[in-house]
Amino acid sequence: MGTDRLNRLLAANRDFSAGFDRGQLQAPPRERLAVLTCMDCRISVEELFGLGVGDVAVVRNAGAVASDDALRSLLVTRHVLGTQEIIVMAHTGCGLLGLDDAGLQQRLTSEFGQPSATTFGSFDDLETHVRDQVARIRAHPWLGDAPVHGLVYEVETGRARPVG
Amino acid sequence: MGTDRLNRLLAANRDFSAGFDRGQLQAPPRERLAVLTCMDCRISVEELFGLGVGDVAVVRNAGAVASDDALRSLLVTRHVLGTQEIIVMAHTGCGLLGLDDAGLQQRLTSEFGQPSATTFGSFDDLETHVRDQVARIRAHPWLGDAPVHGLVYEVETGRARPVG
Repeated sequence: MGTDRLNRLLAANRDFSAGFDRGQLQAPPRERLAVLTCMDCRISVEELFGLGVGDVAVVRNAGAVASDDALRSLLVTRHVLGTQEIIVMAHTGCGLLGLDDAGLQQRLTSEFGQPSATTFGSFDDLETHVRDQVARIRAHPWLGDAPVHGLVYEVETGRARPVG
Repeated sequence: MGTDRLNRLLAANRDFSAGFDRGQLQAPPRERLAVLTCMDCRISVEELFGLGVGDVAVVRNAGAVASDDALRSLLVTRHVLGTQEIIVMAHTGCGLLGLDDAGLQQRLTSEFGQPSATTFGSFDDLETHVRDQVARIRAHPWLGDAPVHGLVYEVETGRARPVG
């Protein structure tokens, strides 16, 4: 079941673990911060905020959507791990921005010869999208007491800018 | 709406963006790899596999659960961003391992004075949990053709070990 790629990653991990010195880190993030952002490969939350491993709980999905599953995760960070503040950070150049959701559904149904109920969560305006996710988090009965901030990360410049 | 913490993070981000040199990175991950892992602050997927920013799409939620939302995200990585392989990586010391899901629901209902339908996704055996998520991904009609691997990351040692 191994592949060349997996074997290479596991070999790199053996080197990493040989020099591992973070065994004392704890699950509660040192910064008491949770960030919901996109799965996009260009985003490193720790790096772009000048933080390190162990500082921040990071929830990631396609588009930084405050889905039911993301809300579940944010609730665990807040009420099991003790985070006190939430940042939602979408980004420029997101694959979901302007994606033809129905078109992709049709293409995959045809390609794989079977349908699926999965939709992709495309959106048309980045700032509106961020505001909607912030509102959704604030509206959860068990999350409304924590500060929630909306940001856009610019993959072209490295800047994270607030969405008011 | 700003807080001291947010202002400090945004100040650090200004330093980061001043020296930013990754504006040419593209959305498709260079390693053509997607990893579904936990939001736990002790996990840096790039670092533990010897990878860098831009190499891997990272989906994260509480417990590395192959939820409907995680499947949506994996589908976007595969069919919009072109990833070819999927790793599911749960970890030792997970906050959901052995969590009293119903007890937490009761506590929060009482604390906030209102109920919520949210449950937390606790589990009792780490290896079984990983196998279940791998099976769920493989069962999706639009994901079954990509290799899917299950791993456990040991937060005490830095080692990522395959779950067969």
